[in-house]
Amino acid sequence: MNEFDLIEQYFNWQGDDDKSAIGDDCALLSIEANQQLATSVDTLIEGVHFPPETAAADIAYKALAVNLSDLAAMGATPQYFTLALTLPEFNRHWLEQFSSVLKSLADEYRINLVGGDTTKGKLSITINVTGTVPKGRALLRSAAKVGDVIFVSNTLGDAALAWQQIQQGINPSQPLLTQFNTPNPQIQLGQALLGVANACIDISDGLEQDLGHILHASKVGASINLSDIPLSQALIAYLKKTNDWCLPLAGGDDYQLCFSVPEACISRLQAIKRQLGVRLTKIGIITQNQQLKIAGLDKTCQSYRHF
Amino acid sequence: MNEFDLIEQYFNWQGDDDKSAIGDDCALLSIEANQQLATSVDTLIEGVHFPPETAAADIAYKALAVNLSDLAAMGATPQYFTLALTLPEFNRHWLEQFSSVLKSLADEYRINLVGGDTTKGKLSITINVTGTVPKGRALLRSAAKVGDVIFVSNTLGDAALAWQQIQQGINPSQPLLTQFNTPNPQIQLGQALLGVANACIDISDGLEQDLGHILHASKVGASINLSDIPLSQALIAYLKKTNDWCLPLAGGDDYQLCFSVPEACISRLQAIKRQLGVRLTKIGIITQNQQLKIAGLDKTCQSYRHF
Repeated sequence: MNEFDLIEQYFNWQGDDDKSAIGDDCALLSIEANQQLATSVDTLIEGVHFPPETAAADIAYKALAVNLSDLAAMGATPQYFTLALTLPEFNRHWLEQFSSVLKSLADEYRINLVGGDTTKGKLSITINVTGTVPKGRALLRSAAKVGDVIFVSNTLGDAALAWQQIQQGINPSQPLLTQFNTPNPQIQLGQALLGVANACIDISDGLEQDLGHILHASKVGASINLSDIPLSQALIAYLKKTNDWCLPLAGGDDYQLCFSVPEACISRLQAIKRQLGVRLTKIGIITQNQQLKIAGLDKTCQSYRHF
Repeated sequence: MNEFDLIEQYFNWQGDDDKSAIGDDCALLSIEANQQLATSVDTLIEGVHFPPETAAADIAYKALAVNLSDLAAMGATPQYFTLALTLPEFNRHWLEQFSSVLKSLADEYRINLVGGDTTKGKLSITINVTGTVPKGRALLRSAAKVGDVIFVSNTLGDAALAWQQIQQGINPSQPLLTQFNTPNPQIQLGQALLGVANACIDISDGLEQDLGHILHASKVGASINLSDIPLSQALIAYLKKTNDWCLPLAGGDDYQLCFSVPEACISRLQAIKRQLGVRLTKIGIITQNQQLKIAGLDKTCQSYRHF
């Protein structure tokens, strides 16, 4: 058996008889009627999206989680994904760690790996996820309405603080590292928001930029309060020292949801909060004036740029 | 406008109001009832799959064409694709060439670009194509039956000869370069073979290995004749000099279809041949003995390996 066959083995989690399994020119999949497909692709590159010393397990987790987060932002139910994996060398230990965590996260979110490609080169992982959402009900960036209340889930800035510390040679605390390496995609929250939220986005590029996408797509504005942004104890301590609000506003890598909810649905949101045990914080309101006003901020932050 | 927004512009071919357009966390797509999805992913890396001096136009063409070839092998109709593009730098001219050829090939095969990701790093292109095929009718590797006649489309080995010459510092002739840089994915042929062929595969890793996949999946064998393999004039001349049959048998990169047809359907194949103007050559027959016998070959070829 050559190395290429071996690599296939690591990712061939389904039986040979499963028609959706890796092994034909394409994977075949059936989708229920009255569902739309939601599909998204993200690439993680060593040195750009994670430091070279990152464990294979953490890389696998994050590569799938950031893609699941895109499904969460649409309120979609994960269905299947493909994996394009570029590896510098054949490393059995690395592949075992990588594939085992990928499988366990995939199982947790009930998403199947249906196809892939392995190539030789600098470490890079491209995952394309596909989910389903009832026709016409997906949460869109373009659906925010004037008067909607703006919420975000959990806390912001933790992953960005971890990344900043790593770059400075400081070992981040475990809670910060967890947010950086193994963020929870908010799949359940996204599904629960169908019919409750108007617009929704995941905060991968930073709140300022991502909320900006909602405002641009919806042709509205927003007014948010700096003091309402939910922060972890670590972030509160960091801000006390530095007053660097750009980290939670523009650091990116949060994979939380930012969404707008009409007043009439706020009570349903309280039920979701209790049911899922997720922290949901009101940070502002959608306005008519097509601008993002951040009360309490005296500067502009440079959001994450891909180049 | 920053460079990231600019890159998005190059690939935002649809209007802002098109729900399937790039711009939300996921693209949303509707699929007709009674269709299955067929999905496949392929990565091309500079220096591995194409030489560094390859024109952006040729890279774009091949990156999409090799993926369309996987849809062809299933008899699927192209629907949409995603693009994960890793670029070493922002180069307006390169992006214009790349996106323009990508769009023109996509238009030709009526497939929409619905999502993407751009990252910074060594040049690499990952495309994930999705097509549809009537439920239960896809051409599978596992469907070959003893007695089926084996065919291949057009000629084999041309792209491999071009690649060999490039590596030796020789400029390939235009017809060879065309097969290497801009192979025609056999989409129409694949669709026409639905209900006519039993098993089908695209010859991307070389006839010996890819036919081997059909035999393995179908638990059958095959007997083919070296002298029946369809060759271009350039290959005939090359073989006269070298007797290196490994090039057409295992060179790979052919993107032709190899398929098995029951005797009863051969006459329908003749009609397809006339209608599409495609060269279809009988090269052998499916046998019970689970081996691949190549009459006329006195050695084993080393097929393309990804590592």
